[in-house]
Amino acid sequence: MEFSKGHGTENDFVVLPDPDVWLELTESRISALCDRQRGLGADGVLRVARAGALISSGVLAQLPEGVSAEDWFMDYRNADGSIAEMCGNGVRVFAHYLVATGMETREEFVVGSRAGARPVVVHHADPVHGEVTVAMGTVKTLGTSTATLGGREFTGVGIDVGNPHLACVDPELTPASLSELDLEHLPGFDHTMFPHGVNVEILTALSVGSDGEKGVDMRVYERGVGETRSCGTGTVAAAAAALVRDGFDLTSDVGHVKVRIPGGVVTVGMENGAAWLRGPSVLVATGRIAAKWWQDA
Amino acid sequence: MEFSKGHGTENDFVVLPDPDVWLELTESRISALCDRQRGLGADGVLRVARAGALISSGVLAQLPEGVSAEDWFMDYRNADGSIAEMCGNGVRVFAHYLVATGMETREEFVVGSRAGARPVVVHHADPVHGEVTVAMGTVKTLGTSTATLGGREFTGVGIDVGNPHLACVDPELTPASLSELDLEHLPGFDHTMFPHGVNVEILTALSVGSDGEKGVDMRVYERGVGETRSCGTGTVAAAAAALVRDGFDLTSDVGHVKVRIPGGVVTVGMENGAAWLRGPSVLVATGRIAAKWWQDA
Repeated sequence: MEFSKGHGTENDFVVLPDPDVWLELTESRISALCDRQRGLGADGVLRVARAGALISSGVLAQLPEGVSAEDWFMDYRNADGSIAEMCGNGVRVFAHYLVATGMETREEFVVGSRAGARPVVVHHADPVHGEVTVAMGTVKTLGTSTATLGGREFTGVGIDVGNPHLACVDPELTPASLSELDLEHLPGFDHTMFPHGVNVEILTALSVGSDGEKGVDMRVYERGVGETRSCGTGTVAAAAAALVRDGFDLTSDVGHVKVRIPGGVVTVGMENGAAWLRGPSVLVATGRIAAKWWQDA
Repeated sequence: MEFSKGHGTENDFVVLPDPDVWLELTESRISALCDRQRGLGADGVLRVARAGALISSGVLAQLPEGVSAEDWFMDYRNADGSIAEMCGNGVRVFAHYLVATGMETREEFVVGSRAGARPVVVHHADPVHGEVTVAMGTVKTLGTSTATLGGREFTGVGIDVGNPHLACVDPELTPASLSELDLEHLPGFDHTMFPHGVNVEILTALSVGSDGEKGVDMRVYERGVGETRSCGTGTVAAAAAALVRDGFDLTSDVGHVKVRIPGGVVTVGMENGAAWLRGPSVLVATGRIAAKWWQDA
């Protein structure tokens, strides 16, 4: 059973190439594989499959909108074995893996996900380093709200990127004071506005860096996870909130923002109300999982 | 660059086979490799080398007592890249790896470590599961002391197993109440008695289980690390403390104890003042680390 281990801005994955869908991904196997002491350890698993094979094997009931049977499909599983619809950092690693291994020869193609088609452009893909842009779909604002952490209140804007975010731009924050905030605990938020919880981003205001590019510094508390080094949809929400605060019209303006997160730097662009996310991918190692270990897991 | 990933009672390691000592293990490479998001992730690295090759390459200045140039040597590195003298769980994985891969055909042999020779017996070694006994050297008691956690004081006995331990047997603890103790923070201890810090074990008193074997339940706070799922020398200290409390003479009596830790079960035996530790090893996966990633790390 082959695998690769990689990460996108330090959001890390075990990649399982399984184009014809032979592997049975039980919750107990996925959670054993992602267990950092007992298994290989990862934030999640990316099964590399053909969309049609997931249908014929019964893993998928129907093709999501925009996805054809011939498309690659990212069958994403969380570390606890549950299913997640999408993962913005995972798609970069997924596309990088396909091109680096020669399984895909095009530079532009569609990656299917449970949230729908995610077109990608693979700008670079050597065996270790990749650089990929992913179309992240539409971004909608949900109105203002507040998050509380460490006894301090932050005003933010609700953003829907397929999942709910509360992105709080604080113009008084510097990269240094941002890094000192206590994000160990779930920030307080308005449960009426976000009945299913929310991902909370805290960020500096837009500023122009020495490279002449607009950018922000951001940290994120992921719903159900805690603080993470990176969150793909969170960087999109943060960029959108920072642009809106600057008078940008999400539905019609065109622009992009560098988002500096603890795990690295990505670029988020907006065009016609839709976002794209460009960033790095790293493939660290490849190998084989012991068959007997997998069967017993 | 080949590697295997494995664990001994959930203390996990990246194994790097390097018998002739070609690899340059810099602190930055080891810490990148052990980083759970950026690398493969592990508690430590076990370089599999011949003792003589470590001498001729200059990694070791001299052979530790009891170790010959022809012996295998466990060149152990902590996750931060620093050197550790020994790791009781690591030796089991190390010996299992050697026999499972066919690099070693004997069942009994010496594993060299910076703390000296560690003779092993490999009872079982298939590609995934191993069962190994390691001679852990002499055990000395250092007198009684106390540890404080969660406002509660525990009386224990100082134990030297090459490194310092404070093993606290509490006859009022049950496995259930043990699991509820707060071990998130460093327990309070006597800094005069342990000027370089101490590993703290909290355990139930000896009891005879349904299998007719004497056993204890234990948790451990490792010096400089925090609570871990397993600590090899800690299980030896715990077993010694439990036996001493039962009237056992460490210098002359013979006996053994099952030690149940969060990561699994091991057996610790005492004979002529020296301890042995028997327990499982699991090899999860094997593969190759990308050369360019390693060079850049």
